[in-house]
This record gives sequence, C-alpha cells and structure tokens, in this order.
Amino acid sequence: MLFVLVTSVLGISYVLLLSMKILDSSPGNEKTIQLSEIIQRGARSFLLHEYQVFLPIVVALSLVLGFLLGWNIAGAFLVGALLSTLSGFFGMTIATKANARTSWAARYGLGKALKIAFSGGAVMGLTVSSLGLLGLVFVYTLTKDASKVSYYSLGASFVALFARVGGGIFTKAADVGADIVGKTEANLPEDDPRNPAVIADNVGDNVGDVAGMGADLFESYVGSIFSALALAFALNDERKSSFALFTVSVGLLASMFAVAVTRFLSDKSKDAASTLRMGTILASSALVASLLFYSLFQKSFVEFLVVLTGVIIGIAIGLLTEFYTSGARVERLAKSALMGPANFLINGLALGMESTLVVTLMIALGVVFCHRLLGLYGVALSAVGMLATLGMSLSIDAYGPIADNAGGIAQMAGLGEDVRMITDQLDAVGNTTAAMGKGFAIASAAMTSLALFANFASVSHLESFDIRQPALFVGALIGAMLPFFFSALTMKAVGYAADEMVEEIRRQIREIPGIISGESLPDYARCVQIATRGALKRMVIPSLLAVGSPVLTYLSLGAVAVAGLLIGATTCGVMIAIFMSNSGGAWDNAKKYVEEGHFGGKGSVTHKATVVGDTVGDPFKDTAGPSINILIKLMAVTSVVIATMRR
Amino acid sequence: MLFVLVTSVLGISYVLLLSMKILDSSPGNEKTIQLSEIIQRGARSFLLHEYQVFLPIVVALSLVLGFLLGWNIAGAFLVGALLSTLSGFFGMTIATKANARTSWAARYGLGKALKIAFSGGAVMGLTVSSLGLLGLVFVYTLTKDASKVSYYSLGASFVALFARVGGGIFTKAADVGADIVGKTEANLPEDDPRNPAVIADNVGDNVGDVAGMGADLFESYVGSIFSALALAFALNDERKSSFALFTVSVGLLASMFAVAVTRFLSDKSKDAASTLRMGTILASSALVASLLFYSLFQKSFVEFLVVLTGVIIGIAIGLLTEFYTSGARVERLAKSALMGPANFLINGLALGMESTLVVTLMIALGVVFCHRLLGLYGVALSAVGMLATLGMSLSIDAYGPIADNAGGIAQMAGLGEDVRMITDQLDAVGNTTAAMGKGFAIASAAMTSLALFANFASVSHLESFDIRQPALFVGALIGAMLPFFFSALTMKAVGYAADEMVEEIRRQIREIPGIISGESLPDYARCVQIATRGALKRMVIPSLLAVGSPVLTYLSLGAVAVAGLLIGATTCGVMIAIFMSNSGGAWDNAKKYVEEGHFGGKGSVTHKATVVGDTVGDPFKDTAGPSINILIKLMAVTSVVIATMRR
Repeated sequence: MLFVLVTSVLGISYVLLLSMKILDSSPGNEKTIQLSEIIQRGARSFLLHEYQVFLPIVVALSLVLGFLLGWNIAGAFLVGALLSTLSGFFGMTIATKANARTSWAARYGLGKALKIAFSGGAVMGLTVSSLGLLGLVFVYTLTKDASKVSYYSLGASFVALFARVGGGIFTKAADVGADIVGKTEANLPEDDPRNPAVIADNVGDNVGDVAGMGADLFESYVGSIFSALALAFALNDERKSSFALFTVSVGLLASMFAVAVTRFLSDKSKDAASTLRMGTILASSALVASLLFYSLFQKSFVEFLVVLTGVIIGIAIGLLTEFYTSGARVERLAKSALMGPANFLINGLALGMESTLVVTLMIALGVVFCHRLLGLYGVALSAVGMLATLGMSLSIDAYGPIADNAGGIAQMAGLGEDVRMITDQLDAVGNTTAAMGKGFAIASAAMTSLALFANFASVSHLESFDIRQPALFVGALIGAMLPFFFSALTMKAVGYAADEMVEEIRRQIREIPGIISGESLPDYARCVQIATRGALKRMVIPSLLAVGSPVLTYLSLGAVAVAGLLIGATTCGVMIAIFMSNSGGAWDNAKKYVEEGHFGGKGSVTHKATVVGDTVGDPFKDTAGPSINILIKLMAVTSVVIATMRR
Repeated sequence: MLFVLVTSVLGISYVLLLSMKILDSSPGNEKTIQLSEIIQRGARSFLLHEYQVFLPIVVALSLVLGFLLGWNIAGAFLVGALLSTLSGFFGMTIATKANARTSWAARYGLGKALKIAFSGGAVMGLTVSSLGLLGLVFVYTLTKDASKVSYYSLGASFVALFARVGGGIFTKAADVGADIVGKTEANLPEDDPRNPAVIADNVGDNVGDVAGMGADLFESYVGSIFSALALAFALNDERKSSFALFTVSVGLLASMFAVAVTRFLSDKSKDAASTLRMGTILASSALVASLLFYSLFQKSFVEFLVVLTGVIIGIAIGLLTEFYTSGARVERLAKSALMGPANFLINGLALGMESTLVVTLMIALGVVFCHRLLGLYGVALSAVGMLATLGMSLSIDAYGPIADNAGGIAQMAGLGEDVRMITDQLDAVGNTTAAMGKGFAIASAAMTSLALFANFASVSHLESFDIRQPALFVGALIGAMLPFFFSALTMKAVGYAADEMVEEIRRQIREIPGIISGESLPDYARCVQIATRGALKRMVIPSLLAVGSPVLTYLSLGAVAVAGLLIGATTCGVMIAIFMSNSGGAWDNAKKYVEEGHFGGKGSVTHKATVVGDTVGDPFKDTAGPSINILIKLMAVTSVVIATMRR
C-alpha cells in the first residue's frame, strides 16, 4: 500500500508538472485565445450543470449509506464520486487549454503540435490512474476492509454513468445539429465560425470524449482493482493482493515513463501515428518486463502469466478494432455505397455484427485460461493487467479530441492552410486512436464486469444452485433486454436534443442579421446551453434503469435472478457495444475514404450515401455504444453492493 | 395417444378436402394460369434444389445416428425431417395454386377472394399441425420413450433451418434485386411483367413466408410438445402428459372449427382484417373453453391456468407487435423521415430496440408464474398452450403471401383496377398479419427454447453447480455473440445474392431486345435459378454454426458451458429477433403511410428516405430476424440430444 501511495503521489506530481508545461506554451493570438476560452467556458458550464444534477443525488445517497451502514462506507462512496468528478474536471480543463496551444504550435511543425496535444491527453490519462490509486489507498486505510472498497467503486460508477450518458448525448446532439443545418441547409463547411453550433460541437468533444471517456475508464480501473483485491482477501492470500497492487503501481510508473519518452520523441516526430504506437508498446513492455523480473524474484510466475494475458487481450482488441474500422474492410464498405445508402447501411450493420466474433472468442479464451491458472482471482487479475497501463492508453485516447479541437480552432481563427494540414493529420490519427480506445473501453468493461460478477457470486454464496430454477433464465432474459432498451433511450435522446438544436440554429440564422455574411457573431453560448439542457434532462431515466434494475430484481426474484441479470446484460451488452462501436467507426472512415476522392469523391451520390451511414453511426459509436459500458459495470457493482449489504 | 391420432387424421382429411375445394375453383384465364404456373415451377425448382443440398446431409446423419444409437432413433430423426419437408412442399404447392385463383375470384368481390386466399393459408396451417401430431404418435409408438422424441424434433429443426435461412435469403435477394434495377434504374412499377425478377420476387414470398415460416413453426410446435412430454415422463406423472396431449389435440380441433367458420364468414365479408381476427379469437376461445370444461372434470385447474397463460402471452405479443408496427408509432416514425434518411433510420432502430421491453417482461412474468405453479413442466406446458392453435394462427400467416402473389398476378395479367383494389386490400391485411405472425414465431421460439433448456438442464443433472465457475459466463458470452454473427452472415448473404441478381437483370435488359417495350418476355426462370443458387450456396455456413456450436462447446468446455451458451444465445437472440422484426415492420409501414400521401407522398424526398429504411429493414425482418428463431431452437434441441447421448 505504501508503494501504491508513493507511485500515485509521483503520478500526481508529474501531472502537475505536465500541466505547467502546457500552460507555459503560447496560447497564440487574440483569436485563438478567445476561441479556446469560449470552448472552455462552454465545457465548464456543461460540467457545472451536470454536477448540479447528480451531486444532490450523490450526497443524498451517501447520507443514506451513512445512516444505514456507517460513515466510513458513506465516505468511501463519496471519495469515489468526488475523485472521478475531479479527474474529469481537471483533465478537461487542461484539454481545453491545450487545444489552442496545439493549433498555435502547429505553426512550428507537426512535432511541436503533437507534443502539446499528447501532453494534454497525458494529463487526463495520468490523473485518472493516479487519483484512482490515491483514492484506493485512502479508502482502504479508512475502512480497513477490502470488501468496503466496493462503495468507492460504486461512487465512481455512479458519476461515470452521468458523465458518459450526459456527455454522449451532448456531443452528438451538437454534432448532428451542426451538420444538419450548417452543412446541409446553410451550406457552411465544417468548423465554420458562422455556424452557431460550431462551439457546442467542439465543447461536445471535450465533455464526451475527454470527461466521459475518463470517467468510464476511471470506473473500469477502480472496479477491476477492487475485484482483484476483494477476491484475494477472500482467499486470505496476502501475496495475491500485493501482486495486484504491485501490478497497478508498476503500470502507472511504466505509463509515466512511456509518456515522458513519447513527449521526448514527438518533438522530432514526422509521423504522429507511429510515435503514439511506440509509446503504447513501450508502456506495455515496461510493465511486462518489470513484472517478469518481480515474478522471477518472488516466484509468482503464474500471476505473471495471468497479467500478461490481460495485457495481450487489451492490445489485441485494439488491433482488431483497427482491422474492422480501417483498410480493406472499410474500402469494401465504401464500395457498397455505390449501390445506395441502404446497401451501405446493411453492409455496415453486418460488419459491426460480424466483428463480435473474434473479440468474444479472445475474451472467452483468456477467461478460461486465467481461471484455470488462478480461479476467479485470476479473472480479476487479468482485468487489472489489461488496465494497468491505463495512464498511457487513456493519454492517447484523450489526445484525439484535443487534436480535433485544435483543427477547429485553426480553421475558425484562420491560421492558414499549412497549419490546418498539420492539425488534419493529427486529427486523422486521433480518429484511429479513438476507435481503438473504444474497443479497449469495451473490453475492459467486459473484463471488469466479469470480475465484479465473480465477486457477486462469491459474496452471494451461489456455490451450489439448481440451474433448473427459472430465475437464472428469467433474469438473463431481462438482463439481455436492458442494453437494447437503454440504447433506444440514449439514441432517442440524441434525436430529440438534436431537434432542439436544429430549431435554435435556424432561429439564430433567421433572427440575427449578418450571421451568414460573417458580420455578426452567432450566440454560441445559447447553443451550448440548449445542448446541455437537452442532455441533462434525458440522462436521468437511463441512469435510474442501471441502478434500479438489479435492486428490483434482487428484491423480487432473489440473488440467482440477479446473477442471470448480470450474465444477460453483460454478454448482450458487450455484443451491442462492439457492434455499435465498430459499425459506427467503419461508416465514419468509409465516408472519409470517399471524401479522399474514391468512388466519386466529395459531393457525389456515393458520398451522400456514406453521409447517411455516418450520421446513423454517430449516436451508435459515441452515445449508445459507450454508455453500455457503464450500464453493465454499474449494474454489476450495484449487485455486489446489495449482496454485501444482505450478507 | 389414440385421441391425438384421431384428431391428426381428421386434420389431414380436412386439409385434403380444403385442397380439393381450392383446386375446384377457377384458376382464371390463360394469362393468370400461365403466371401461376411459372411461379409454381420456380418455387418447386427452388425447393427441389434445396432438398438436393440438405437431403444427403439428413440421410448421412440418420445413418450415423442409426449405427451409433439404434435404428429407431434414426427413424425418429428421419420422420421429423421428412414430415417437415412434406408439410412445406404440400403447403407451398397449394399456396401457389391458390394465388391465381384468388386474383380471379377478386373479380366477384372481396369475400370470394378472401375465402380462397385464406383457405390456401389454412392448408399450410392445418398440414403443419396435423402432420406434426401424426409424426409424434408414430415416433412415440416406434420408440416407446418420450426422451427419444427429441430426435424427431431434431430432424424437424434441421430441415427448418435450411428452409428458413435458404428461403429468407432467396426472397430478399429477389425482392431487393427487383427493386434496385426495376424501380430505380428502369423505372418500372411494382409487379411489372417487364421486370425479369418479378417472378422470382413472387416465388420468394412462397419459399420464404410460406415454406420457411411453416418449417419454423413446425419446429416450435414439435419442440414444445416434446419438451412437455419429456418433462412429464421424467416426473412419472401420466396425468401431466395426457393433459399436454389433450391440449394439442383440442387445439387442432379448435383450429379446424375456426377455419371452417372463418371460411363461412369470409363469403360475405366486407372487412378482411376483422374476419381473420374473429377467426383467431374463435380458435383461442374454443380451446380455452374446452380445456376449462376438461379441467373441471379432471380437477386439473392448475394445468388449465398454465395453458391459459401461454395462450394470453401469444395473443398479447401479437398485439404488441401490431402496436409497434402500425398506428401512432408508425406515423411518428414516418414524420422523422422529414429530417432525412439518417434520422428515419435512427428512429426506426430505436423503435425496434425499445419494443423489446414489454415483450421481455411479459415472457419473464409468464415463465415465473408457470414455474411457480407447475415447475419446469409448467414452462413447457405454457409453450404448448401458446402453440396449440397453431393450425389457425399459421393459416393467417400463410394467407399473407398468397394475397401478395394474387396482387402481383392481377397486375401482371391486367385484370383491371377493381380487382387490383381488392387484392391490395387483402395484401395490406396480409402485411399486418405477417408482422403479428413474426412476433408470434419469435415468442414461440423463445418459449420452446426455454422448454428445451429446461429439458437439457434436467437431462444433464445440473441440479447443483457452482455459478462461480467461469464456464457458465464464458458459454453465455459465446452464446450471445452467435446471433450477431449469424445475422451478419445472413444479411451479407442477401447482399451478395442481390448483387448477382442485379447483374442478371441488367444483363437481360441489355441483351434481350424488346423487354422494356414489352415486345418480348424476360427470362424469368434464369432469375429464379440465380436467386436459388445464391441462397443455397450461402445457407450452409450459418447452418453449420447452429449445429456445431453446442457440440464444440460441449466437447471443449462441458455441460455447464452449454447451459451458458443456450442462455446467451436464447436471450440475446430473442432480443435481436424482436428488434429486427419490429424495426423492419415499422419502416415498411411508415413507407406505406407516406405512399398514402402523407408528408409529401410518393416520389417526395421524404418518400425516398423511407425507401432507404424499408430496404434496410427487408433483410432485418425477412431474413436475419426470423432465421434467429431457428438458430436458438436448433441449438437447444442439439444440446438436448448431446446430453441424452452422453447420459
């Protein structure tokens, strides 16, 4: 625990150092500074409004927990909620500072710009890991009971749900709204400052892909570590729990090392993709090498193998995502658009559905292997292995929206063709890393849920039960339905919020004279406000569903039905998440492929067909798909908590 | 058993009588006769080719079964396969005779046409039930062991898979091909004889929606009865098994009665929908009343309640399907097409996903209720109750494609506006009944799979097992993936087969002069041949997946993993099937709603958007969705067979 504390404090110090370095660099001219500030204000305003919605619930829940179960439990819950909120807020603040600085640095070449954008992402990545670990140490010291750490995890999950669902609805409502009126009706190009929703679109990248993604992975990180610890404690095996803690600490150190090296290399980088890929490989290799060394010393070779399996699954799933959302597969998909939008859609849907095969088999094999070696603890430990270098992998994820924002600012501030070309390059790499990050987030959610399920089964004493009870099957049936229903809610939420957005944009263009001629500025803040309101209003019901379903099932049908519920929701949820994420990613990239001049290029009938697919894919890959990660994790952690309470 | 034998023989006699009555009516003039014959020849040729693909496999499998397990088992398997094949062939032959006769009868008013079309459907419906029961009696007499009836069910499932998947690919490849070139490129109206694929399109309705649907429900019917019998025998309770047998026999009699009354009423009918609805209500009421009487007499009131639950679930799911694919929901969906195809698609996808909620909760409640009352046997018995009046419900299902064909023939033979108006009315009703039939098929597949699962669990002696074994979860993960992967395969198969079709249509229009001017006939047979080849080639791999996955899982991971596999595949499969069927149905009807003149009407931009949705929905609702029914049933029955073999 002391080692964990030291690494997390080291991590936080490095984050502060990085933040200072970013703030030290020039934010550019008056225009870029102004734009960056508007975006930042919008993002902050969204988060503050979001907090107003969920903080009262968090406080109320912790009071209930405190009265019922004791104040240390309430404290654990509160720490989880606050640290997740804090990481999101801090990471996003730095990200919105890094965007203008990236576009300004692009004037001095790709390397400089890459360095700032990546550093901005690294602040998010390392904050999540460091604070996650710090909170863990704190809660464990507070409660002196590994099973109580579940409340820490619950707090983090709770916040993550709102962050992911709310952020996901916001970002796509803004994006779709901006596209529909801006591009289609008023014929404005992407990122045009005359489009009233352009700022909201940029804000969306930050609240969805930075804050939302960060909260999602904070939850996976904390949940997997908690599961491994609790299962190790249940076995009364201190060597096992210290191995898990050692793995995450070394993982954080390896991530910091990899971030430092990547920053150093990016200065002279000519190819952003390969620099970032090298960083990822470096983090994993450093982790694996240190653990190998440690296990030779400690004779814990089996544990090492399990962690290695987790690392390999994580990497392999990233590569598989890349396989399905780029290269030959996407070219073939783009070709299908020649036969019209319907054909493009059918093929994209089929592609996403097909992509579930190998990922599933890989996770299944990994789980069987790790369980053979170390039992349920092995399953949890491999999840820990997969997430150990989260510091680095999340850095690369969060780099994407910064690069995207930088491109928007460069365009809006008129920084010239050269700068825009560099930010476009960075943005393209960001799209690939975002797709891979989504795959990783799904896989880690699956592994974490599995680890939590193991915990639930262990706490509920379901050692010997009769499978012929219908409760298991009925629970699974209801569980399998939830991700579908949940996706319907989030997809419709995007639709409604986008409609409100469209009306507001039309109103501004109609009522404020001189917007289209560029003489007067649109009311950006009002668009942000509308997307914020639209998102927050519609995130409550899906959230209640996630928390309420295991509670209701437990009370009405018992623990076996909850086991079924978790099995149904997790297995079916993972499939839908993979399907939606890969269909969406493939449509997006097929559209970009056509825009590069293939099959008729921009403006052709084929291009129009791909735009339809991309628009359908947007809520798939950025709202409904990622939200399911949280749904299944929150359901699992809620179940663990109920089972613990009932014990 | 004797009672069952008598009713099934009665059923067969009535079927023969009905067939003769249909053949007695006038097939019309030279043109309608010719068209009907071409369609019939195409449908027969498809079926014969299909048999060439699967009969060798069936024979080989029965030889293997014979050598390994005894010739009575091989016989049971063979009887299941042959009776399913025979019902499909006979039902379809009559359906292709009834189509021209329906269009000719439409000259004398709606009632006459409705009577013939419905009679044609009733031949299919009653053949399936009667032969299903006859085979059951035969196999039980042959083996004297209820558990051996599983091989009869396996034979039927095996054939159903090929019929459903092959027929589903054929029908949509022909439909999409005909639409793409005919409507879009050559600007021909629907059902225009100058379109080379028009016959293939009509053939498709027969092989997909008559033969395929019939085989699907034959399997559900046989599977649910087998499950109830086997579970009753396991309890050594003769009263229980005779109640199940009594229920199906009375159900068949009630269906025959309802068919007779419906035929009588249809003569004077002004409103096809209400006449058919009355028939359905009549069949269910007759069943419920007889059972109530029987249970008062036999003091088996609990059994009666369970059957009643099954009947209610079946009806309610039909109504729910109607709710989601017509009326206000569809109008709202059509309105969303005003914002373009992407919006229409997103809302349709969300609608289908949302529609899983109530259906799932209803099945879950029903299962819990029936299990409380009568244990696993209760679950199987409620499935039997749901399917008991299959004779009537399938009659109405199979009526749809006959009415559709009749419309096509009326158009191609130029029978005039009046006739076409009547066939259009019949067709519209057929679309609604088809959608409800799909809902019913899914619900019955879910209940049958559940009953088979109960059987599997009972045979495998999984009374006491440790849920913390990862095998259950891993099995469920793989199981949940299969319906997605399977859907990807079938959807892509439609795409490829449609592409081949499009090429052939283009070739004919290019190479055969005078097609477009109407001077020479296109080569209809060649189009049928191409769709046949395309469908048969691509139905093999999905089929192997369904049979192979439980076998492989059993051998590599054991019985618990197979239990997980079935849970994952059934729960997730049911959701996808509901989602695809309702999204597809809603898109289709929203398109029709716009074509009626709303939101711009035919030819408007809104209409184009709805056409995109409808085209995406076609493989959803007619290929991938329905095929999943068989996937989950075949997986379940295969698992039961393996478990029985291993015992």
